[in-house]
Amino acid sequence: MDQKPLVTLTTDFGTADGYVGTMKGVIFRIVPAARLVDISHQIGPQNVRQAAYVLYTAYPFFPSYTVHLVVVDPGVGSARRPIALRTPVGKFVGPDNGVFSYVMARERVEAIVELADPRYRLSQVSHTFHGRDIFAPAAAHLAAGVPITALGPPVHDPVLIPSPRLEAIPGGIVGEVMHADHFGNVITSLGLLEWKGDELSLDPAFEQVGDKTHMPQRFRAEDAVIAVVGQEIAGVCRTYADVEPDQVVALVGSEGHLEIAVREGNAARRLGLQPGERVIVRLA
Amino acid sequence: MDQKPLVTLTTDFGTADGYVGTMKGVIFRIVPAARLVDISHQIGPQNVRQAAYVLYTAYPFFPSYTVHLVVVDPGVGSARRPIALRTPVGKFVGPDNGVFSYVMARERVEAIVELADPRYRLSQVSHTFHGRDIFAPAAAHLAAGVPITALGPPVHDPVLIPSPRLEAIPGGIVGEVMHADHFGNVITSLGLLEWKGDELSLDPAFEQVGDKTHMPQRFRAEDAVIAVVGQEIAGVCRTYADVEPDQVVALVGSEGHLEIAVREGNAARRLGLQPGERVIVRLA
Amino acid sequence: MDQKPLVTLTTDFGTADGYVGTMKGVIFRIVPAARLVDISHQIGPQNVRQAAYVLYTAYPFFPSYTVHLVVVDPGVGSARRPIALRTPVGKFVGPDNGVFSYVMARERVEAIVELADPRYRLSQVSHTFHGRDIFAPAAAHLAAGVPITALGPPVHDPVLIPSPRLEAIPGGIVGEVMHADHFGNVITSLGLLEWKGDELSLDPAFEQVGDKTHMPQRFRAEDAVIAVVGQEIAGVCRTYADVEPDQVVALVGSEGHLEIAVREGNAARRLGLQPGERVIVRLA
Repeated sequence: MDQKPLVTLTTDFGTADGYVGTMKGVIFRIVPAARLVDISHQIGPQNVRQAAYVLYTAYPFFPSYTVHLVVVDPGVGSARRPIALRTPVGKFVGPDNGVFSYVMARERVEAIVELADPRYRLSQVSHTFHGRDIFAPAAAHLAAGVPITALGPPVHDPVLIPSPRLEAIPGGIVGEVMHADHFGNVITSLGLLEWKGDELSLDPAFEQVGDKTHMPQRFRAEDAVIAVVGQEIAGVCRTYADVEPDQVVALVGSEGHLEIAVREGNAARRLGLQPGERVIVRLA
Repeated sequence: MDQKPLVTLTTDFGTADGYVGTMKGVIFRIVPAARLVDISHQIGPQNVRQAAYVLYTAYPFFPSYTVHLVVVDPGVGSARRPIALRTPVGKFVGPDNGVFSYVMARERVEAIVELADPRYRLSQVSHTFHGRDIFAPAAAHLAAGVPITALGPPVHDPVLIPSPRLEAIPGGIVGEVMHADHFGNVITSLGLLEWKGDELSLDPAFEQVGDKTHMPQRFRAEDAVIAVVGQEIAGVCRTYADVEPDQVVALVGSEGHLEIAVREGNAARRLGLQPGERVIVRLA
Repeated sequence: MDQKPLVTLTTDFGTADGYVGTMKGVIFRIVPAARLVDISHQIGPQNVRQAAYVLYTAYPFFPSYTVHLVVVDPGVGSARRPIALRTPVGKFVGPDNGVFSYVMARERVEAIVELADPRYRLSQVSHTFHGRDIFAPAAAHLAAGVPITALGPPVHDPVLIPSPRLEAIPGGIVGEVMHADHFGNVITSLGLLEWKGDELSLDPAFEQVGDKTHMPQRFRAEDAVIAVVGQEIAGVCRTYADVEPDQVVALVGSEGHLEIAVREGNAARRLGLQPGERVIVRLA
């Protein structure tokens, strides 16, 4: 009774048209007991990297039997492959354009297949709406228990997008802005950070990033200096309420990444920060 | 086990207020096992035609036991009737203002009734929120298995909105823009078109539209010329990726209608296209 | 079979990021049979009063076994308490910042507890996303049947926000704008009003509001004069369609509050009305 078919949806379709609803109808026709969760339908049009990031923040909190359907698909109708992958923490369905890169970097990938078997597509496949005709049916069949290997042949060379910038420099670490959220909070690639008393410890995985002799693996939060767009923020706080309303604050966000925020304000707008902007952490 | 109560919702309520949630609460009180799917809550305020179009694209993909609830209701509280209709592919509940016109044009209507029986309304009916007080309860009762004829007396003269323009002219067909979607893709009334190799065939229903001797029932896609707002687009492609990024392209959309798009761009904005704008297809 | 776990969600998270989806994942991990309803995720950032209002309009229409989860939480990570409350008409989970004030004013509160027991939180609690780490787990456990008293110790002094302005003045009543909805309809604190034939009766609870000898408990709708931002609206109508398109109209909204609208238009924009603006009703 614990394993109900559960499908999440992440798209750039918006919610004004009937596209998302249409995909849900397709899913219900295949698996009437499905439960469906919208992750986001406001991914920027064709913004594969943003979709990859939003998915990355959400999927770890879902049951491992969940199927995560992602349709951000600038190459629809072209030769790009439709794929599905299976990991111990969930299954994933979408275009082979790198949208699952962050999942693949973090999870053990047990299988990747091309969605080639026509039995798991709608009988008519359009050239412009594979979300409805290929991806939603595949996700539904997976949720219903069809083994992933039934969907098509293995894929050995999935498309990957580059990891966000994260490298050691003399005296510090350089990362980049990954995402500005609805509140204007700015999440950077500088992670994973964990609190140990008053100190912050860097994710051991960071050891692979480069010459780290210039930056200790563990440092006092108040000693950190964050430099971004010509400004410097002194110290890392625990939460927004640690500063006065309207003040800029650096903190460790809910994903363990360094985040720049304005208490009860919009840091992205205030500081003019966009994805890709360089962020540096040094010690004072 | 295959027939779970399933209700879709299409409104102009937006999602910021509690109106949609309130309707869902009403439905769950009547049928706790309901599953609910949002089609759109961003129909333009009081835009009956847009609601009719969005519903038209979505309902065919749902199970036939689905109840489609539509509340775009400029006449709420006036003498306009609340209605429900039954077709072989789904049931529909909403105001009698033409919002089901495209459904009625395509499906066999088995019954239309006025939602008159107070047993299937909330005990108190407001003058301004029939979505909550009349339509949601009716949809819930239908989903729970109440026969449509129990809801009220038959309606013989439902309000209809005119079909979108589609007519033969010497040497071509004239249609109109029906919808600009979230991506700025512009869907026209020129359909239904189907690919036959490199040729496009027109829906036989088009034969009824007018003198068609000037336009063959089947033509080479590359011979078509689409004229809109003083511009001409040569040829019909299969998908967005058939042209370079930022190029205007005409294609057959996922509903079988002629669509005008800009690859990775916004055609509605680029060309200044809005619903109602005239579109002409000729052969070169 | 009638009592399915049902959780509603009201947040200021927007729907572009994965935050809401993440909370839903957390809920499904705890109670796979949950059904989830979004009330609104477009509460203004940190706007506790707006969240309180939107919740107030929606919760009465849900089954009494529903758990209403509200995360509008400017004090996340600070000393503000996370709480849950139980009433005969539903349970409520969220920060102790006044967001449940209107619920507490209308319902009998049977228990309020602080969400202190770590068994009903995620094992790791961040400083910035208690919606995911504390509130969603608590709501899920409540929905699964955990008694509210198991979640933590009683709270005797919940934070309350002031009630909206509503007071008698010589010859009338003064209230304020509470909310402008998606249509630009402006809902005021002047309620509850009920139609009795052609007359309106004021909620008896209004007797407590002040010296009411200057305003009868019941009056003819056509005699009322509504004054707001220097304009006067004569009479209270039943519905939008009682005036011509584009005309300003005063009516009794679906919650029983005096509402100011423009038929097929946007009253908030037209009249420049925002929450807090003073509204006066007098008799002509």
